[in-house]
Amino acid sequence: MFIYIAGAGAMGCRFGYQLQKSGNEVVLLDSWQAHIDAIKAHGLHIVGDQDEVVPMTIMRPEEAHKQAEFIILFTKAMQLQDMLEKIKPVIGPETKVLCLLNGLGHEDVISKYIKHENIMMGVTVWTAGLKGPGEAILQGKGTINLQSFAAAGEAAVQDIVDTMNAAGLNVIYDNDVVPSIWRKACVNGTMNSTCALTDATIGQFFASEAAIRIVKTIIHEFVLVGTAEGVKLNEQEIVDYVMHTAEIAARHYPSMHQDLIQNHRLTEIDYINGAVARKGAKLGIATPYCQMITDLIHAKESILNIK
Amino acid sequence: MFIYIAGAGAMGCRFGYQLQKSGNEVVLLDSWQAHIDAIKAHGLHIVGDQDEVVPMTIMRPEEAHKQAEFIILFTKAMQLQDMLEKIKPVIGPETKVLCLLNGLGHEDVISKYIKHENIMMGVTVWTAGLKGPGEAILQGKGTINLQSFAAAGEAAVQDIVDTMNAAGLNVIYDNDVVPSIWRKACVNGTMNSTCALTDATIGQFFASEAAIRIVKTIIHEFVLVGTAEGVKLNEQEIVDYVMHTAEIAARHYPSMHQDLIQNHRLTEIDYINGAVARKGAKLGIATPYCQMITDLIHAKESILNIK
Repeated sequence: MFIYIAGAGAMGCRFGYQLQKSGNEVVLLDSWQAHIDAIKAHGLHIVGDQDEVVPMTIMRPEEAHKQAEFIILFTKAMQLQDMLEKIKPVIGPETKVLCLLNGLGHEDVISKYIKHENIMMGVTVWTAGLKGPGEAILQGKGTINLQSFAAAGEAAVQDIVDTMNAAGLNVIYDNDVVPSIWRKACVNGTMNSTCALTDATIGQFFASEAAIRIVKTIIHEFVLVGTAEGVKLNEQEIVDYVMHTAEIAARHYPSMHQDLIQNHRLTEIDYINGAVARKGAKLGIATPYCQMITDLIHAKESILNIK
Repeated sequence: MFIYIAGAGAMGCRFGYQLQKSGNEVVLLDSWQAHIDAIKAHGLHIVGDQDEVVPMTIMRPEEAHKQAEFIILFTKAMQLQDMLEKIKPVIGPETKVLCLLNGLGHEDVISKYIKHENIMMGVTVWTAGLKGPGEAILQGKGTINLQSFAAAGEAAVQDIVDTMNAAGLNVIYDNDVVPSIWRKACVNGTMNSTCALTDATIGQFFASEAAIRIVKTIIHEFVLVGTAEGVKLNEQEIVDYVMHTAEIAARHYPSMHQDLIQNHRLTEIDYINGAVARKGAKLGIATPYCQMITDLIHAKESILNIK
């Protein structure tokens, strides 16, 4: 299968690497020039569970011309629209697109570029890191839950599911993936902004009763808004899931901490807590915790002079 | 007049210094041993608008035995009860007590130790800093607004007002000081926790629209709760006052930043935003911004292992 990975950060590299290894033709698309240069010069260096160097094709999105059979979207949330705009030429009538971005509301953007029946929404618990340009850290195992918007459902994307499973990506076709996407958004919405603001690991932040009150109130707001949108969410199950995830990831800084505090980059807050606050405002549901934490993160971006 | 300054931090040192210079017998009370030792050994070193060394009497509160004519309370909010407990022996039936602590709700604690008619509540815009043990930085001028709980009002405390004015402290007797106390609490409630959390000067924090949204929402909660308690508050006037104060103090870190980030000390958050959240809960008024920022500060205290 001919596959573009649109957004070749840590996760994009993982998926591209695994899909190429299992026999597909994979092209990574990214705009980070140092990363492109490194991979072109030396290949993609994989460390972690294995240590190997793999030649991979990488280019800027505007350089892609060959029509895709399958595109995995894995940009940062705020880069999605720009990426789709740039890869318009390679999106054909049969091109299937899987969105694995963190956060909420991406289907509204994707629908402007991709036919409804060709869109898949998904969520993954695979992890990955980047040590630097051209160097990915891959450890552990994960799964992907995905759902197609096509009327035929799973049957419409069976070849995609099979291709990804042949690459060891552990895809589960999910007839109702949206609750899983919201559940992951709850994980990000309770850990990312809070740990970034308080400059803490997940374990450090989750250690106090005060923090747990914040976590539970944020989840409550997500559940109120999601439920009003018709998503089936079980608040207690989500609280348990978030607490369990926090235990497993206790020693880690979440990605927003890496973006904001370590690398002084803009955050995805508008697509996580900010998305819930916007949806809440439309629905007439108060989401003060989501709104306040979104504004605190934006205030911090401004303080650090990040634009 | 024989005066104790109960809490000889920066502001206590300023008031003690000025009152002694104008001819009163002043004793500073504090529990910071290095500060006590420095002042006993070398006197109080005043820098800033002047540079002089002044011999002053300082002791631990439990060492005070002579009954006071007048006590100025200037501890950190969380040390108030402990201070009052220790100075019980010097509180006589005629001892007048002026509370100048930041924050809200201190009269509830003071009333347990002092007769109602001997209590004065006040608020000041004087400033001061400490360079280190025994060394105070005094710059600029200020005023004090105060009100007596005595039925006779101003007449009951005329000698105190005169004594303080003779020391150049610019006291205004205020027949309704509570709105001013709330207004100052709004200044602290919008700058202290936010700048501490985002590690910013007041000017850096107030520079973004996101921050101003937070500031205005916090003030709104203070006004809702204060008004429900019968305090006359004008929300727009307070917003203007806070914005004006932020402009003047733009280059400074507020005291909570000094406590939490610079010195890893417990904060006064429970007596500022936390007090409004508690009052709101009693009154059935939602104060999510005050509650969340209080919990974020407590989470940060826990992350820094401050107890």
